[in-house]
Amino acid sequence: MKQILVDMDGVLADVYQQFQKFEKRESGQEIPADKIVGKLEEDAFPNGEKHVRSKGFFREAPTIPGSIEGLEYLNNLYRVYIVSSAMKFPQSLQEKHDWLQEYYPFISWKQMIFCGEKKAIEGDIMIDDHPKNLKFFDGKRIIFSQPHNAFADASSYKRVDNWDELIGYFKSPELQLK
Amino acid sequence: MKQILVDMDGVLADVYQQFQKFEKRESGQEIPADKIVGKLEEDAFPNGEKHVRSKGFFREAPTIPGSIEGLEYLNNLYRVYIVSSAMKFPQSLQEKHDWLQEYYPFISWKQMIFCGEKKAIEGDIMIDDHPKNLKFFDGKRIIFSQPHNAFADASSYKRVDNWDELIGYFKSPELQLK
Repeated sequence: MKQILVDMDGVLADVYQQFQKFEKRESGQEIPADKIVGKLEEDAFPNGEKHVRSKGFFREAPTIPGSIEGLEYLNNLYRVYIVSSAMKFPQSLQEKHDWLQEYYPFISWKQMIFCGEKKAIEGDIMIDDHPKNLKFFDGKRIIFSQPHNAFADASSYKRVDNWDELIGYFKSPELQLK
Repeated sequence: MKQILVDMDGVLADVYQQFQKFEKRESGQEIPADKIVGKLEEDAFPNGEKHVRSKGFFREAPTIPGSIEGLEYLNNLYRVYIVSSAMKFPQSLQEKHDWLQEYYPFISWKQMIFCGEKKAIEGDIMIDDHPKNLKFFDGKRIIFSQPHNAFADASSYKRVDNWDELIGYFKSPELQLK
């Protein structure tokens, strides 16, 4: 059975909405998506580093539309691991576990991997919004569109803009796995 | 650079001592090591499942003798990841991170991996006390002696009884890596 590594932030969890909400609360600033194209959220939001260390930032994040049905579809056909770079913000670890358990109850704790970097995690397909994770991956690389990755090298990844496109790709003959 | 996966509980953290301490506090029972040979600690201690879910169980665990110097030695020569099956007990996640940071400060958060099962983590060498983790591993398997693994199939693993033996093995010509 093929093994898929699915990222959390920016693929399952809408952290962009959380950055907006926390920034507005903190500084009153509203930062629309078109102002942060090409920038990592932690850099694009004046208090970004503070937000990701705030209680509730990950626990209260909305899910990305289509991710619940989409992940369940993948989970029925493949060996799925949820792989999240969470270790830099250790207070997020339990929040991320609890959040996954609430919204994606078909994913067991055995399928969760929280790490610092993702280089040691193996699989056939990686779905991630960060080129820094995808570029070390040997298998098929799928980049999930977020404002920060707008300028990522298109030739290195299959790009999908949303979960509908992602699942469409999995159902299409275009996806060739060794 | 060769990649080594180092387990936490039973290799770095002396969880056996914690089980003893928590059991004595809970039920007054003292359970010596020779009474739990071949049994997993959670099963061997009457309240084992409760202990691992208790606050402080992991955070206050003693280090296993020689593990600090030994891990630093390995960390200078290899790419080391600390891989812990922590996801079943999510309250342990931050405790484990903080504990590693306190006792092994040369290990960065980038080198920490907390997961449910270890099948998706790749490396050249795995050091673990649990056959259930080692048996799915493709590389060199080193079993770290603990009472519960006394009857593990000797032909499948290189067995070491303590950190002195472990580091001695790494320094010996016996260790052959592809």
